[in-house]
Amino acid sequence: MIQASKSSEIEKIENGSILTPKGYQAGGIHSGLRYRKKDFGLLMSETPASVAAVYTQSHFQAPPLKVTQDSIAGRGKIQSVVINSAVANACTGEEGLANAYKMREMIAERFNLPADYVAVASTGVIGEQLPMEKISYGCNSVELSKNGDKDFQQSILTTDTCQKHACYQVQIDGETVTIAGAAKGSGMIHPNMATMLGFITTDANIDSEDLQHALGQSIDKSFNQITVDGETSTNDMVLTLANGQAGHSPLNEKHSDWEAFQSALQLVCEDLAKQIAKDGEGATKLIEVNVTGARTSEEARIIAKKVVGSNLVKTAVYGLDANWGRIVGAIGHSEAKVDANACDIYLEDQLVFSKGTACPFSEKQASEDLDNEEVRIAIHLGEGEGSGMAWGCDLTYDYVKINASYRS
Amino acid sequence: MIQASKSSEIEKIENGSILTPKGYQAGGIHSGLRYRKKDFGLLMSETPASVAAVYTQSHFQAPPLKVTQDSIAGRGKIQSVVINSAVANACTGEEGLANAYKMREMIAERFNLPADYVAVASTGVIGEQLPMEKISYGCNSVELSKNGDKDFQQSILTTDTCQKHACYQVQIDGETVTIAGAAKGSGMIHPNMATMLGFITTDANIDSEDLQHALGQSIDKSFNQITVDGETSTNDMVLTLANGQAGHSPLNEKHSDWEAFQSALQLVCEDLAKQIAKDGEGATKLIEVNVTGARTSEEARIIAKKVVGSNLVKTAVYGLDANWGRIVGAIGHSEAKVDANACDIYLEDQLVFSKGTACPFSEKQASEDLDNEEVRIAIHLGEGEGSGMAWGCDLTYDYVKINASYRS
Repeated sequence: MIQASKSSEIEKIENGSILTPKGYQAGGIHSGLRYRKKDFGLLMSETPASVAAVYTQSHFQAPPLKVTQDSIAGRGKIQSVVINSAVANACTGEEGLANAYKMREMIAERFNLPADYVAVASTGVIGEQLPMEKISYGCNSVELSKNGDKDFQQSILTTDTCQKHACYQVQIDGETVTIAGAAKGSGMIHPNMATMLGFITTDANIDSEDLQHALGQSIDKSFNQITVDGETSTNDMVLTLANGQAGHSPLNEKHSDWEAFQSALQLVCEDLAKQIAKDGEGATKLIEVNVTGARTSEEARIIAKKVVGSNLVKTAVYGLDANWGRIVGAIGHSEAKVDANACDIYLEDQLVFSKGTACPFSEKQASEDLDNEEVRIAIHLGEGEGSGMAWGCDLTYDYVKINASYRS
Repeated sequence: MIQASKSSEIEKIENGSILTPKGYQAGGIHSGLRYRKKDFGLLMSETPASVAAVYTQSHFQAPPLKVTQDSIAGRGKIQSVVINSAVANACTGEEGLANAYKMREMIAERFNLPADYVAVASTGVIGEQLPMEKISYGCNSVELSKNGDKDFQQSILTTDTCQKHACYQVQIDGETVTIAGAAKGSGMIHPNMATMLGFITTDANIDSEDLQHALGQSIDKSFNQITVDGETSTNDMVLTLANGQAGHSPLNEKHSDWEAFQSALQLVCEDLAKQIAKDGEGATKLIEVNVTGARTSEEARIIAKKVVGSNLVKTAVYGLDANWGRIVGAIGHSEAKVDANACDIYLEDQLVFSKGTACPFSEKQASEDLDNEEVRIAIHLGEGEGSGMAWGCDLTYDYVKINASYRS
């Protein structure tokens, strides 16, 4: 049980998935885009759902994102999301855009939906055109069911080593509301936006505008605070569907359970974001950086992300080397206000740097702490009340291996 | 022969060093800070020299930099630079500052100089106090000579695999003026400032203010445009001494040979910067990124640095994989103005991406091109007249190896 900010309690549902909220089905199949693994997925709400989305900030936004934006602009509702892995359909020009629209139309036709009720997503290699025969096979063959969650989760992966899902429940007007998500993301993971794909379903009753507001708040403290390699992709988005089947009164900021809903959505996003960071390419551990005492929370988040994104910090953690000088290096060149003489740095529970000077600490204990699956670095800046967190992973031989031969 | 912007010719002196300009001596010894390698160096001008310096922008500027700034503020002249490797004397508080001052005083006393004629530099591990017995031994034992250049060049290195030096000559008022430099830098290499140490000597006759102006111009297009790992160190600076012994009329912006001097200084900086990038930790090759057609030259430099600093680009180059999608990824998340539909990307001579779409190209040729010691990526943005370059290196298993165990 996790205590939400107000009185409501939020419960984590360990085995929950995007199909735990009422009124959703999904499926995933092998369409031939990848050698053997599932590569084509479909998510469907029984009824048109409110929708909120956040997209990559890359100047090279891929065609599927443009189609999805076009769909959402249509009626402000979405009922279905179709996605393929292996080929990102990015940097593919007019032909790529036409192909993304065809993907949308094939699903709309088969399920008898207005075209603009269908969102489209792709992930994979940049610069190749979608092989439309295989896409067409996928659109015509993928089957929906109430237990297609694992197939769907599998079909959206690329270099990921595991499926990523999260599910939380919260009480709204005494009704149980479920919020759940599935995500992919392993490399090209860096903020603005999160360089990954995230699909969140909920049976909450909320209109698209309020849902967008809640999603934006959550993203800033979750998907935008993870980094694997400082790279932003062309394709990535987080899409949230809310079909209202939980049957409570409409949620908005004035609703007494708004904060509980916001907190639960935040938890789903943070849970998925941490799973992505932990599964970073070649990673052996999750690194969590917690910055407090910043002038503002935005500055705290900037510094946290800078530290967790530092190649030198990442390799030191991999080497179980308590080389906190690298943390100093990373903090040192951030844009935020930092006074070395006010700053404290902790590796797990040990204070290693305080007010401009090294502190004596147990190297043995530090090495043991770094040998855990999750490593915590805490930084107190002594400048104000701002706080923020960020998540990443260590930098390993396998990161180099995976990325020196991604296409071969 | 390299043609300078005006009529003067600039000549590269292949075997030249910081002791090629008139009136300088240097030396380097093993003082015991490192296990066996030279770790203590001294550079001396026969006469007080004009001085210009640029320092790391880190919030955690180390004590030696503060002492150097204090020295320069004294009389605006410098005669000597003392430097140790192995211990950076960073994050060492009041004790560290006192030690850096002691280092300065020992040299001043031994060579009978005013204390503020001595600059101090350190490089190495952050957070340890200088072992002052060894430093004292170094200050009292290092010997100066006209052929101590290689010893000096060696003594300033840490994880560098080779010495870095450059020397150029230019005619000013018909007199030969020499500008030369020695540098160190291998990891923690990223702009603002260059996260390395650079020592430039010249016999040009120029006052400190004009020298500072010329250095600033050169740094922006050289040391600030290299990156190995996106990290900025606490200790790094470029220090330039000009002792006037070439005997021409004083140089300033109104002098007819000013541009020739500026160009030659720029070449020294660029030459050293490229050597540092090429010797990046674990690197097997130099990557050069040339951006043209940007709105401004500043934006061009931002994008060039973003691409050359991308872990995914760096690993692809290491893997001889012409995965230009990663270049798109890196350009895509820069702050500069980019329109995918106006952008062209070249890998060496092959156009791989043009105006929003992939281009057919020879993968075989691309792999061969990537297998060279120097790899060139060119990006034309089609936005304006701004241009800029940046240099970096590939990301390899050895980078991880070196940095996972730096202190052990």
